[in-house]
Amino acid sequence: MGQTLTEKILDDHLVDGELNVGEEIGIEIDQVLTQDTTGTLVWLQFEALDLDEVQTDLAAQYCDHQTYQFDFRNTDDHRFLRSAAGTFGAHFSRPGNGICHNVHKENFARPGATMLGSDSHTPTPGGLGELAIGAGGLDVSVAMGGGAYYIEMPEIVEIRLEGELPDWATAKDVILELLRRESVKGGVGKIFEYTGPGVESLTVPERTTITNMGTELGATTSLFPTDEHTKDYLDRLGRVEDYEELSADPDAEYADQIVVDLSELEPLIATPSMPDNVVPVREVAGEDVEQVMIGSCTNGGFEDILPAAKMLEDHDIDPTTEMIVAPGSKQASEMLAREGWASEMMAAGVNFSESTCGACIGIGHVPASDSVSLRTFNRNFEGRSGIEDDNVYLCSPEVAAASAIAGEIVDPRDLADDIGLDVPGFELPEEYYGADTDLIPPEEAPDDGLIKGPNIADVPLKDPLDSHLEGPALLKMDDNITTDHIIPATQDILMYRSNIPKLSEFTLSRVDEDFADRALDSDGGFLVAGENYGQGSSREHAALCPMYLGVEGVLAQSFARIHKANLFNFGLIPLEIDEETYEQIDQGDDVEIVDDVRDAVESGQEEFTIRVNGDWEATGLLDASERERDLLAAGGKLSYTKQQHESGETPATGD
Amino acid sequence: MGQTLTEKILDDHLVDGELNVGEEIGIEIDQVLTQDTTGTLVWLQFEALDLDEVQTDLAAQYCDHQTYQFDFRNTDDHRFLRSAAGTFGAHFSRPGNGICHNVHKENFARPGATMLGSDSHTPTPGGLGELAIGAGGLDVSVAMGGGAYYIEMPEIVEIRLEGELPDWATAKDVILELLRRESVKGGVGKIFEYTGPGVESLTVPERTTITNMGTELGATTSLFPTDEHTKDYLDRLGRVEDYEELSADPDAEYADQIVVDLSELEPLIATPSMPDNVVPVREVAGEDVEQVMIGSCTNGGFEDILPAAKMLEDHDIDPTTEMIVAPGSKQASEMLAREGWASEMMAAGVNFSESTCGACIGIGHVPASDSVSLRTFNRNFEGRSGIEDDNVYLCSPEVAAASAIAGEIVDPRDLADDIGLDVPGFELPEEYYGADTDLIPPEEAPDDGLIKGPNIADVPLKDPLDSHLEGPALLKMDDNITTDHIIPATQDILMYRSNIPKLSEFTLSRVDEDFADRALDSDGGFLVAGENYGQGSSREHAALCPMYLGVEGVLAQSFARIHKANLFNFGLIPLEIDEETYEQIDQGDDVEIVDDVRDAVESGQEEFTIRVNGDWEATGLLDASERERDLLAAGGKLSYTKQQHESGETPATGD
Repeated sequence: MGQTLTEKILDDHLVDGELNVGEEIGIEIDQVLTQDTTGTLVWLQFEALDLDEVQTDLAAQYCDHQTYQFDFRNTDDHRFLRSAAGTFGAHFSRPGNGICHNVHKENFARPGATMLGSDSHTPTPGGLGELAIGAGGLDVSVAMGGGAYYIEMPEIVEIRLEGELPDWATAKDVILELLRRESVKGGVGKIFEYTGPGVESLTVPERTTITNMGTELGATTSLFPTDEHTKDYLDRLGRVEDYEELSADPDAEYADQIVVDLSELEPLIATPSMPDNVVPVREVAGEDVEQVMIGSCTNGGFEDILPAAKMLEDHDIDPTTEMIVAPGSKQASEMLAREGWASEMMAAGVNFSESTCGACIGIGHVPASDSVSLRTFNRNFEGRSGIEDDNVYLCSPEVAAASAIAGEIVDPRDLADDIGLDVPGFELPEEYYGADTDLIPPEEAPDDGLIKGPNIADVPLKDPLDSHLEGPALLKMDDNITTDHIIPATQDILMYRSNIPKLSEFTLSRVDEDFADRALDSDGGFLVAGENYGQGSSREHAALCPMYLGVEGVLAQSFARIHKANLFNFGLIPLEIDEETYEQIDQGDDVEIVDDVRDAVESGQEEFTIRVNGDWEATGLLDASERERDLLAAGGKLSYTKQQHESGETPATGD
Repeated sequence: MGQTLTEKILDDHLVDGELNVGEEIGIEIDQVLTQDTTGTLVWLQFEALDLDEVQTDLAAQYCDHQTYQFDFRNTDDHRFLRSAAGTFGAHFSRPGNGICHNVHKENFARPGATMLGSDSHTPTPGGLGELAIGAGGLDVSVAMGGGAYYIEMPEIVEIRLEGELPDWATAKDVILELLRRESVKGGVGKIFEYTGPGVESLTVPERTTITNMGTELGATTSLFPTDEHTKDYLDRLGRVEDYEELSADPDAEYADQIVVDLSELEPLIATPSMPDNVVPVREVAGEDVEQVMIGSCTNGGFEDILPAAKMLEDHDIDPTTEMIVAPGSKQASEMLAREGWASEMMAAGVNFSESTCGACIGIGHVPASDSVSLRTFNRNFEGRSGIEDDNVYLCSPEVAAASAIAGEIVDPRDLADDIGLDVPGFELPEEYYGADTDLIPPEEAPDDGLIKGPNIADVPLKDPLDSHLEGPALLKMDDNITTDHIIPATQDILMYRSNIPKLSEFTLSRVDEDFADRALDSDGGFLVAGENYGQGSSREHAALCPMYLGVEGVLAQSFARIHKANLFNFGLIPLEIDEETYEQIDQGDDVEIVDDVRDAVESGQEEFTIRVNGDWEATGLLDASERERDLLAAGGKLSYTKQQHESGETPATGD
C-alpha cells in the first residue's frame, strides 16, 4: 500500500511507535520555532535542562506578539530572548522583523522537514511541504534538547482541489469554505493533506494561507505536496537548494476525502464570532465598517497586501472607516515600501504600522465599542480583539480593501462594477529581498550572556515523586473548572508569564483569592474537584503554577484530556475519585495516599488508597500510560528529560 | 519706542488690558488645536456651552497620542473626536496621520496668527511666525466659542543668534544649549523671540525644532521672525498665500538678551532625567545603548529623519540595539517611503512604526529595565518613558543614528572619522505632498452626529455660587498635596479622562480611598489642606473632579498658583486659612461660611468668616481678581461663558 505524504515524512522521522491511527508515536524534530509570549518559558525550561546548545538542525526565536512593547516587561522579554538565542544557538528575529510564521517561511521552511513551534499557527509552512506542528512550550524545550515529540498518530484526510479560482476569489476563500463545511472541530485529530489538479493553480503564498488557517479547523497540521511552484518560490527566496520533490504515492489511502472545486468559490466572510460562521460576502453586504485591518500570519505577506494596495491606488478610505495595515514581515514592509506600494496605501488613508501580530490578539488597534471590524486575520473569537461584545469579520485582503473604500461590507465584484476596479491579482517578485539585518544568526550573536530583567525568574523544577504523599485538601472546587479559572489570561496577568513565582500568585484566584498564599504556606497538599477539571485552553501554566505552589496532586471526578497530560508533564498525580468520595472530602481535610506512591506509580498500579483525616478511606484511580508514569515518577517532563541527559541516554529516543 | 514681534502680534489681537508685563491681557485667538488625550474634554465642554459651531478662523482636532489604540476607550475617543469635529466645524486628522504640531505646521500654521492648543508643545509654529500658546482644555473650549484668552503679559526676551552651525551640530543642539544655560525654569513667564544674523542660516523645520522645545525652558512661547525662508517653505507646502513678512522693529526693547553663537555649538545631549542636564555628547560617549528612537514633534519631520536615513544607508543597527522610527506625520512617512528612505532604514534594522506621539509619553516602546534609551524627543523626566528608574537621553537624529550604528553613545564626528560617514544634511523637498486623505475638512465630514461610546460621559456643569455654603470637612490633608495626589495620571486612570463621573472615583484616592464615595454621599463640603495645596502638573481634572463630587471649596494655608486658577475656573472657592485654624479643624467638622457668599464674592470682599461646628469662628481670605470673582460667582468658567453667550454678550470681549 502506498503512503500519504504525511506518512512518508513521519516515517523518515519516527523514533518510537508505529504509524497506526490513535497510537502514540515519537518523532524527531528538525526545526523549532518560538515567539515572544511563549518563548521566555521555553528558554527558561531549556536552561533548567542544563544543556549548552540547541540540538535540532535549526531553532528560531521570533519577537512578534508584543512588538509595541507597552510595558518594560515586554522589552525585557525581547532582550532576554535575544540573549537566550545567542547563548543557546538559535536565530534571533528582532521585534519589528515580523510574525514568526512569515519570517520562518521566508528564511527557513524546508520541504520534508519536521518542525515544532510554540504557537498554534505553526502549520503555516505546510504550504511548502514541511510537516509543522504547534505544541506547548515544554514540548518545544524538550525537542530543542534533542528529545522526541510524542503525539497520537492522527487520521490523514485528503483535501482534493479541483479547478481554478475565479476572479476575486482567493486562497482565503478556500480555507473559509473548508471552515464553512467542516466547522472549527472538523480537523481535530486529523492532518489535512492537499492533493488534486487544483494544487498547481495555487502559488506557495496562497498555499500557506490555507495551511496557516487549517489551525482553525482544529487540525494537527496541513500539508501540500511540493512541485515546480515550490521550487520556483524557494528560488526567488534565494534558497532553491532546500527544494525537494514530495508527494503522496498514487495509491496512498486516506481516512477520508473532501473535494473542493475552486472554480465554484466566491468571496466569503466569517461573521462574528467564530471562524466557521462563513457566508458569501454578498449576504452581509451593506454592514457599516469602522475598522479594516490587513495583516497577520494568514494574510500579511507581500502577495497578500499587494492586491489591496493596487485596489487603493486611485481610491481613498471612507472617512468613517480606519484602515490599518500591519505587514506580516519586515521583508514584506520593505518590499512594499521600495516598490512604492506603502506610500500608495498611506496616500489612500492607510495607517501603515509595524510588522506585528498585535491586533490579532487584542494588542493595539482594539475596535471601538459597538462597531464592526473587518480583518484578514484567522480568528474572531468573541473578545479576542480586546473588547468584549466585538463584531469581528474575517475575509480576504481584496474584500477588506473594497470594504474600506466603501465604508461598509461589500463584495468586491459589486464594487468593481460600481467604481471600475480591475481584478488586482499579484505576481511573485523576481527576487525576495530585505530585512537580513533583523535576523541574527547564532554565530553572529553578541556574546553577552543571559540577560534577565526583574520580571524574568527561573523556572521551577520538581523533585522526583515522593513515596509518601500527605497534605491538606487545599481547595475544593465544583464541576467544570477551566484553565481560565486556574490561571486567568487577562493582559494584566499575562505579562508575568516569564515569572512563574509572580504568575503563581494568581493561581485559582478566581475561585478563592487566598488560595495561592494558603498553598505556599502549606507543605504540599491536594486540589479537589468535581467533573471535567481543567477544561478549556491548553495552557501549561495551569499545571506549572500549582506545581510551583507545592500542590502534589489533584483528586477529581474526571479530568479534561489536555490538562491531565499537563499534570503528568509537571509531575502532579491526577487521581479519579467517585462522587461519594468527592462529597465526603471537605476543604482543609488531611489527605494521605497510603501506598508507596513512587513504587506504585512506577509499577503500573491503578488503584490508590486515600486516607482522609486518618479516619476513613477511599479509592483513587490513576489512568496513565507507561510514559506518563515515567514522567510522574521523575517529577515531570522537564526533570525526566534532565535525568535522561544526565544519565547519558539518547534523548531522541524518548522512553 | 519700537515693538517686539510678539507685541505686534498681541497688539493686533488685544481685546482686553494693556501690554504691560505682569498685567492680565485678553487676546483674540485665530486658530485652535487639540489632540486626543485632551480633546475629548475640550469638545464635551464645547458641547456644554450649547454652541453650534467653532467661532475661530480654524480649529483642528488631531489623534496622535493614543494611536496604538490599546483599549477600546482610545478608539472610542477617536471616533467621538471625528464626530465632534464634523459636528462643530473642525478639521479632523485621523489616527496615524501624525502629531498635531507637525500636521498643523504642514497644513495650517500662519505667520502673524494667534493659536491656542491644549498641548504643551503648541508653540511649535512659532518657527514660522505664529504666536502659539499651550493652554488648558477649558481655555481652548472657550476660545473655540469665540472667547478671549487671558494671560499675564510675559516678559519678552531676545535670543540673538549669530554665526552658522558647524558640521554635525543641529537645531536640536541650539535648544539644548539654551536649556543647558537657562535651565527648565529659565523661560517661566517669558516669551523667547529669536533675532540676529543667525536666523537666516536656519530653515523653517530647524526653527520649529527650536520653538517646539522652547516649552522645556518653561517659556510661554517662542517666536521667529519670517523671511524668504518662511515664504519659500510655505511655497513648497503649497500655501505661499499665507506668507506675511514679520519682524520686530529695529528699536524694539527686550527685557533681556541671550546671545548664542551657532558656530560654537557641537553635538549635545541631555542626560537623565531632565532636559537641561545637557553636556557635549563626547562627554558621555561609550555608554551602551539598547534603544534608539527617532520621532516626536521635536525631531519627527521629513527633514529630521532624512539625515538619519542617509547615515544608515550603508550601515546596520548594532545587534544589541533596537531602533524605532515613528515619523511625526504621515506626510513625512509617505515622502520617506516614496523616496526610498523608509525601505533603506528598514534594511538597516529600523522598526518603522506609525506616526505617533506614543513612546514620548510612555505609550509603546517602553525601554527595558536598567538600560539606556536615546531619543530625539523633548522630555526625559524620570518615568515618562513608561518605566521607573529609566535612563533616557535626548539628542539630535544624527547623534541617534550614529549611536544606533555603534551600539553606544557616540559623537557622530568621531564615528564619521572611524567608519567614513559623510555629513548627511538635508535639502527641503521641492514640494511637500501626501496624506491629504487623512485630514478631513469640516465641509467634507460625514454627517453622523456625536458618537459617544460607553466611556464618554457628559461634562458636569456647576450651578452659580450659592449664597449659603455649609458642609463637612470631607478630608484633611497635609502640606504639599500635588495634583498627582488629587487625580493620578497613571495609564489605568488616564483612559477615563473622557468620563468625569468615572474619573472622579479616583479623586484623592492616594490620600484616602474612601474619599470619593464620602464626598458624593455628602451634599457639598470642603477640603482642608496645609501649605502649597495643588502643586505639580497643571491638570484641570484636579479641580473638575472635586467639583463633580460636590466639593464647594478648599480651605488651605496656601495654594499653588495654577491649581488656584483652576479652582476659580471650576467654581470652587479657595480660602486661605492660618496655621492655627488649620490645626483646629478636624476631618468631619461642620464648616459654614457665615457671609452671604455669592454677594461677598461679587462685591470684592476679601475676608470671610468660617464657623466650625457652630462653635468657633475663623477667617478665610479670598485673594481673587475681578475676573476670577466673576468666574466663581457664575459657577466656573464654563458656566460663565455659557451665561455670556445666552445673554448675547460678545464673547470675544471676555469680561
